[in-house]
Amino acid sequence: MRARDLAVEFPAVTLDTPALEAARLLAERDLPGLILVDEDARPLSILPGTQVLRLAVPAYCQDDPALARVVDEAHADRFLHRLGGKTVRECLPEQPRELPVTDPEATVLEIAALMARTRSPLVAVMDEKRLIGAVTLQSLLDHALGV
Amino acid sequence: MRARDLAVEFPAVTLDTPALEAARLLAERDLPGLILVDEDARPLSILPGTQVLRLAVPAYCQDDPALARVVDEAHADRFLHRLGGKTVRECLPEQPRELPVTDPEATVLEIAALMARTRSPLVAVMDEKRLIGAVTLQSLLDHALGV
Repeated sequence: MRARDLAVEFPAVTLDTPALEAARLLAERDLPGLILVDEDARPLSILPGTQVLRLAVPAYCQDDPALARVVDEAHADRFLHRLGGKTVRECLPEQPRELPVTDPEATVLEIAALMARTRSPLVAVMDEKRLIGAVTLQSLLDHALGV
Repeated sequence: MRARDLAVEFPAVTLDTPALEAARLLAERDLPGLILVDEDARPLSILPGTQVLRLAVPAYCQDDPALARVVDEAHADRFLHRLGGKTVRECLPEQPRELPVTDPEATVLEIAALMARTRSPLVAVMDEKRLIGAVTLQSLLDHALGV
């Protein structure tokens, strides 16, 4: 089995994608992260799901999560409203996560080695010019274990 | 909504759990990681899925994933066999990942703040003595977005 067989279509976002749309993609598609691409659809980085949360959580709560308890339950439930108007550009970590990229011919072992080295549960698969899709840790393990 | 409402039963492993069993749990339950507990079922750390792969991938392939291509496809497909006989103890990173833990009363915002600060898509929920379950980034986003 090769990367081309394991890769699935994967939602990509750009720097200008609304942060709330990124959160919806993560939730609806049950993904560990999103692939950030440039204007020419070339993959740039991974946006981990937890980074989108950072934009929605007030800074004082991130420094001390226990402080979040002073916000009542009803308001806490609506915390994602703070994403309104913000974009993926503002979600990016200061040091963007390395995006492992491989080609369609990569074997299962090669993909596993990339995931192990970069600690990324996601590997982008590119042909010469464009993003074909991605292999997730889940699909790799499912295949390797015959689940 | 509180942590007790969002927490789901979550498979825990110990240092002596076979690595292959950990891989099966990750695959079958579609999880971002596993919770490592001590003999008294108290949570110790998170075992990210990619760490289990590290044990299955020969060191020379992790240093240079392209070298994995010299292994033929049939053998590459069976790379998880290298986990046989190994345990979770051997999978742990040198610097174990911080396990965010909260109590059943934590609000959605408090859980989000913990995930954002620790960059963990998983928060363990404990009552005074034992692990009740965990809240995942997915379940948090599903709730916050009303998916």
